[in-house]
Amino acid sequence: MPVYSPPVRDMKFLLNEVLEISQYSALPRFEEAPQDLADAILEEAAKFAEGVLQPLNMVGDTHGCTRNADGSVTTPPGFKQAFDQFVENGWPLLTAETEYGGQNLPSVLGIAVSEMISSANMSFAMYPGLTRGAVEAILAGGTPEQKEKYLHKMTSCEWGGTMNLTESHCGTDLGLLKSKAVPQADGSYKITGEKIFISSGEHDLTDNIIHMVLARIEGAPEGTKGISLFIVPKVMVNDDGSLGERNSMICSSIEHKMGIHGNSTCTLNFDEATGYLIGEANKGLRLMFVMMNAARLGTGMQGLCQAEAAYQNSLAYAKERLQGRSLTGPKNPDGPADPLIVHPDVRRMLLEQKAFAEGARAFLYWMALHGTLEDVSDDDATREKAGDYMALLTPVVKAYITEGGYKGATNGQQIFGGHGYIEESGMSQFVRDARIAMIYEGANGVQALDLVGRKLAMHGGRPLFSFIAELDAFMADNQGDAELEPFLDGLKTGRENLNEATTWLMENGLSNFDNAGAGSHDFLQLVGLTCFAYMWAKMAKAALAKADSDDPFYANKLLTGRFFLARVLPEIGGHLAKIKSGAEPLMTMSADGF
Amino acid sequence: MPVYSPPVRDMKFLLNEVLEISQYSALPRFEEAPQDLADAILEEAAKFAEGVLQPLNMVGDTHGCTRNADGSVTTPPGFKQAFDQFVENGWPLLTAETEYGGQNLPSVLGIAVSEMISSANMSFAMYPGLTRGAVEAILAGGTPEQKEKYLHKMTSCEWGGTMNLTESHCGTDLGLLKSKAVPQADGSYKITGEKIFISSGEHDLTDNIIHMVLARIEGAPEGTKGISLFIVPKVMVNDDGSLGERNSMICSSIEHKMGIHGNSTCTLNFDEATGYLIGEANKGLRLMFVMMNAARLGTGMQGLCQAEAAYQNSLAYAKERLQGRSLTGPKNPDGPADPLIVHPDVRRMLLEQKAFAEGARAFLYWMALHGTLEDVSDDDATREKAGDYMALLTPVVKAYITEGGYKGATNGQQIFGGHGYIEESGMSQFVRDARIAMIYEGANGVQALDLVGRKLAMHGGRPLFSFIAELDAFMADNQGDAELEPFLDGLKTGRENLNEATTWLMENGLSNFDNAGAGSHDFLQLVGLTCFAYMWAKMAKAALAKADSDDPFYANKLLTGRFFLARVLPEIGGHLAKIKSGAEPLMTMSADGF
Repeated sequence: MPVYSPPVRDMKFLLNEVLEISQYSALPRFEEAPQDLADAILEEAAKFAEGVLQPLNMVGDTHGCTRNADGSVTTPPGFKQAFDQFVENGWPLLTAETEYGGQNLPSVLGIAVSEMISSANMSFAMYPGLTRGAVEAILAGGTPEQKEKYLHKMTSCEWGGTMNLTESHCGTDLGLLKSKAVPQADGSYKITGEKIFISSGEHDLTDNIIHMVLARIEGAPEGTKGISLFIVPKVMVNDDGSLGERNSMICSSIEHKMGIHGNSTCTLNFDEATGYLIGEANKGLRLMFVMMNAARLGTGMQGLCQAEAAYQNSLAYAKERLQGRSLTGPKNPDGPADPLIVHPDVRRMLLEQKAFAEGARAFLYWMALHGTLEDVSDDDATREKAGDYMALLTPVVKAYITEGGYKGATNGQQIFGGHGYIEESGMSQFVRDARIAMIYEGANGVQALDLVGRKLAMHGGRPLFSFIAELDAFMADNQGDAELEPFLDGLKTGRENLNEATTWLMENGLSNFDNAGAGSHDFLQLVGLTCFAYMWAKMAKAALAKADSDDPFYANKLLTGRFFLARVLPEIGGHLAKIKSGAEPLMTMSADGF
Repeated sequence: MPVYSPPVRDMKFLLNEVLEISQYSALPRFEEAPQDLADAILEEAAKFAEGVLQPLNMVGDTHGCTRNADGSVTTPPGFKQAFDQFVENGWPLLTAETEYGGQNLPSVLGIAVSEMISSANMSFAMYPGLTRGAVEAILAGGTPEQKEKYLHKMTSCEWGGTMNLTESHCGTDLGLLKSKAVPQADGSYKITGEKIFISSGEHDLTDNIIHMVLARIEGAPEGTKGISLFIVPKVMVNDDGSLGERNSMICSSIEHKMGIHGNSTCTLNFDEATGYLIGEANKGLRLMFVMMNAARLGTGMQGLCQAEAAYQNSLAYAKERLQGRSLTGPKNPDGPADPLIVHPDVRRMLLEQKAFAEGARAFLYWMALHGTLEDVSDDDATREKAGDYMALLTPVVKAYITEGGYKGATNGQQIFGGHGYIEESGMSQFVRDARIAMIYEGANGVQALDLVGRKLAMHGGRPLFSFIAELDAFMADNQGDAELEPFLDGLKTGRENLNEATTWLMENGLSNFDNAGAGSHDFLQLVGLTCFAYMWAKMAKAALAKADSDDPFYANKLLTGRFFLARVLPEIGGHLAKIKSGAEPLMTMSADGF
């Protein structure tokens, strides 16, 4: 049976020693999270994730969700009890707003808790995850009445929430969507249409589900400029907050997917269902992107989570499984063979996973920190920089970390050999679950295009220049530190490649947009590697500060970082060469020539 | 529903224009395959693969195999009828020996037919595939009586065959195996033990299954030097060839796997089953490697097959699915959106698949040609070189092509977006099926170690020097050909990286074997890229020879090759850098430090 033990030690290292969040303790949100409270929360969350959610992970995969004849959906055995416990213990309220009962803690702490939950059970984590997305949209665009009516129950996860974007003929290109909204005399709308791939779309975990639905008001313009967002409750909510009649929408089927079987991915049919406009008419996409941006960080995190879970299991297997002898002579001479971990190529696969997971965790937490600073910092420049980083690097987090997560899970499975291909080991599930994160919330190719097509040129390129300036400042501040030097060299490699790639894109991508599109995937990978190089430099600096500690954690952190420099970062040059080859190798062939 | 249309045009191009097999028509085997016959065979095989086997591929995935209470196994609906047709039409006999009813055709033709069958239905193809492995072992080590008794029925696939190596505690390290063989007065043995992960281990497709089983004769030495190979029929065969009693072995369970559900992967329990020693006692591993080597080429081919099938489906989807607009202005202005294929990053994913599949096909067919030349050439030097290439490059074919196949299938799935994650599209199956090929028949890490640890130094390095000499000769012979120049430059890049990597390994791998192990994966990738660069140079040369043809096939072949040079080959430098970083970044951390 697979295991998962939350890496609380590594999380504390990031929060307290790398990001040093205590420096922000005078700011809102951060002031609610003194280190002893933060540590206690991490410890409690770890118990819940490991003790309650992880044992249900394979149950969810094996049983999946069942759609019943009446359109209701039964989640896998144990999910309802675990969810009740999750709500009762107040986990959804951790980072939520005080006015809705929340604890108002900073995202950088919330993401650590979310990581544990999603590593333990990705399908389970998606129920509150989607609910939070819907909450963000109502917070951003709802009227005071709408907020009052829905947010108390949704924030606590007593009610669920969903995002209804996709229709069978359109996912990425939402301008094509056909769902209709017909205005009613009372100010509400009748919503009609079919939405597919709706995560957490129907289930038995909550009394109500508040669907956020994109539809086109009768007579609205075609394309993306005629799309509005609606609140469509599964069960109507009376003015006193009590539940009324069932709305006219139903789950018509649940999908048979490669993974995340424990989450109900539904086709939802709206048949003149009652909905309420949220935000301005025809400007629904803007509001939907509020949800999407938060969701993209969460999706990037899912890549980390599956890689971490796969790593832990493959590490345990590599230490325990005896097979073959070390190339340099037996290391377990009294046993019938040496453990797998003596073999260099097994270590390569383990360290690729480990260096990825630790780098990705640092990157995600650093981003989450900026997400909160953007809201609460009392310094204009800090808020601006934080907003710039969130805009620029969200697509990188989403695509680079989900792709790395899939590779990491695949490496973990590989270490198990044939046993990894058998479902009982759980390694296949990590790969199958990780796979979706590269696809949903904007496929990774869409993220890459967002990066080169929008984020790079935003505010005259300010976000990228700001990021490069931070790298330069770090290098300048630490120049001459002999022990940090290899990490500064790695950062310099990243920075130089980034500079050359950006210059090439500026010179060639504006005259021919296909040059930008052709290089987008590799540019995103290159930025991802540079971000990781920066994270490893920051982690190395924090670890070197404890060079005289007895705790081997610090020395091992430095070794993992050195592995990244020697065995991961060298990929960057290949990405640069591919970018500079331009559009011609991709665009010349006619469609019939393929 | 997924589709598959065998790429017969590309196969003919390789056989007739790149490898020019007509030049060998005076040699045994080749003399049986004039071009008109070869073409007719390809056309017929294509019909069978597309018309009969492909429609059963998803059926196999959905239904899987069922173990019945009596230990018998029922294959998916339709498999038995298709298998009967496969046998009746004589497909297994194509490359088989004349004395057992075979047509004695060269492997380079057989591999094209095998590719079609495995692309259409990988799980189905494994039943005859494993049988052929068992045939090879009996051909190599059986007595005349054993050959007479088993090979007629096995060659035609009227009986099945299996390879029984793995036990629960050992796969790679067969020296640990525990199955026992006790000699009997009549010269037979009683075999007792449990074997796991036995592909095609029990099924309803044939009247009998001949298991090739590794076991240790009572009193034999421990480790790999005490392992013998046994023929263990499922049903005993009487001297007159008729079937006798059921042998004392049973399928105790079938595995729940990530993919290849249509193939029955069994745990087989042998309980004093009657077996017959084949080859010398205690030298069973040597014979088993006869099977394994042939199987490794076939496993490499499986990588190509799943990538090809995924490519075809993702290409059709990219042409048909309307989503978004081209970055350079609408290409389908009258439609609601442009087809996916206008987007550069979609083309990147398509061309990565296409350049991989065509390069892999060339590499595999070129290897298959050498496999036959090793046997039938009348020239000593040609036979030696062919044998050297088979030894050196079999691990490269197995690991590089299976890894590329998994990546290719993943790319194909990605193009489908959310629809690719839903099982109905069939894209998930390609990924899940492709995944096993990186694991079985020697995990890819074992292939890499075989390459650097054994094959590189074999015969004083002759195989690699011989290969490099061929590359040099090709470059010298074609020097000054302006149109071929980019391909010659690509080949030079490969050759230089290969040279530098080999020199580094020679200087550092012998003094510390861990340096060789640490670089093994990247060295194999580097050799794979160099082989592909050579194949693309050869294909470009053949295509350029038809530069004035009206058939756009040739121009598109050159464009695909140029994509390889611009967008795949640049990865080679990263692999070299990783190799040269040596063992230290991998081996320093203690096992507890992970």
